[in-house]
Amino acid sequence: MKPGTIHGVGLGPGSQDLMSVRADRLIRGASHVAYFRKRGRTGHARSIVEGLIAFDAIELPMEYPVTTEIPFDDPRYNELLAAFYERHVAQLTEIAAAGQDVVVLCEGDPFFYGSFMHLYTRLQGRVPVAVVPGITGMSAAWTATGRPVTWGDDILTVLMGTLPEAMLVERIAQTDALVVMKIGRNLDKVRRALAETGREDEAWLIEYAAMPQQRILPLHEVGDSVPYFSILLIHGNGRRP
Amino acid sequence: MKPGTIHGVGLGPGSQDLMSVRADRLIRGASHVAYFRKRGRTGHARSIVEGLIAFDAIELPMEYPVTTEIPFDDPRYNELLAAFYERHVAQLTEIAAAGQDVVVLCEGDPFFYGSFMHLYTRLQGRVPVAVVPGITGMSAAWTATGRPVTWGDDILTVLMGTLPEAMLVERIAQTDALVVMKIGRNLDKVRRALAETGREDEAWLIEYAAMPQQRILPLHEVGDSVPYFSILLIHGNGRRP
Repeated sequence: MKPGTIHGVGLGPGSQDLMSVRADRLIRGASHVAYFRKRGRTGHARSIVEGLIAFDAIELPMEYPVTTEIPFDDPRYNELLAAFYERHVAQLTEIAAAGQDVVVLCEGDPFFYGSFMHLYTRLQGRVPVAVVPGITGMSAAWTATGRPVTWGDDILTVLMGTLPEAMLVERIAQTDALVVMKIGRNLDKVRRALAETGREDEAWLIEYAAMPQQRILPLHEVGDSVPYFSILLIHGNGRRP
Repeated sequence: MKPGTIHGVGLGPGSQDLMSVRADRLIRGASHVAYFRKRGRTGHARSIVEGLIAFDAIELPMEYPVTTEIPFDDPRYNELLAAFYERHVAQLTEIAAAGQDVVVLCEGDPFFYGSFMHLYTRLQGRVPVAVVPGITGMSAAWTATGRPVTWGDDILTVLMGTLPEAMLVERIAQTDALVVMKIGRNLDKVRRALAETGREDEAWLIEYAAMPQQRILPLHEVGDSVPYFSILLIHGNGRRP
């Protein structure tokens, strides 16, 4: 039997009409739809595609065994997640081996800091896998600010708020345009790093880019906490005629 | 009269079904479609949407007065381009003032190193402008390689090949994942910078990502020249369970 294909499909930043035409077609036509979610939740990826999935499609929620209950540098965190990915790879492989395609919903772009990558590497060589790129959350964030992010030969640096403060300082000082993701509990650290480089007043915070709750604030108007879907941005100012 | 809106619409990397559902709807429904092109050419943006535009849509090609005939650091280059942008801003403003919407086709993502940005800043405050983000060429490039680009807290740096060699060396040495665009005549310089940082063997060159002529090569298999649609990539290898 010809095996099915596992499609890792980028959904884009969260607005249904910002997914690609290819993603839209694959999702509407899917017999099997898999997605990550936190236990007991609908899941953000699933809610983006609400109303698109066929009524008789088989849904395969993949529920994280742990999200923030254990720190990510605890060895148990890695063990639990590795076992979780292996289990779902086995499940997806079985469905594909039976000749069925599966669409795996991926927020943003699957190969850019995505969870699907952990399935993808394990599926290699076992079943056919295809990936559909998506509009990144950072593209939606800079679009939301109404200002271009990079001009001419501006340098863009993408940093995670989880990096050590000294490294944040070093890289923020050197770049033209900046994107910081995974801010959450690292907000204070990111703020300090920006202050140390004197770039605090250039920074914008975009919450829920391209989603109904979208909010754009200069960093100095942001309070003590930010939602999970937050992106910090400094615009480049490069050469322009 | 209610003025029309100028829509800067991201087309994505070049495959028609990788544009967003929103872009697809706007383009099919457009009464006026504008796009940049080199004089005497169809234009890449225009060819991406072939078959989508309504038969009676009015097309507004905007032909660059100069592309590579004058070096970009010659003052005449800036003068010519500024006059060109002003001329088309006047044209677009006039159409919008008459109550008509215009869709401006933008390769990739409009706010990420795009030409539309030069119209956008000049249109501000004159007529309503809306921007639709798109899948970037770099997303298509890393998807084409079949390997995720950033994991965990990998740093991604985006550089233009037009930057000075010393700066390329410094930034390539420091980053986890790397994207280099605008390679063209800078191929030798980019190669030297990679060699100096000892990262030459990690580099991939993706030509025409997501287009029919797509080609993926390790850098050491690339010859003396590369096409305009070329992206150089180094993958990150960050934390993964």
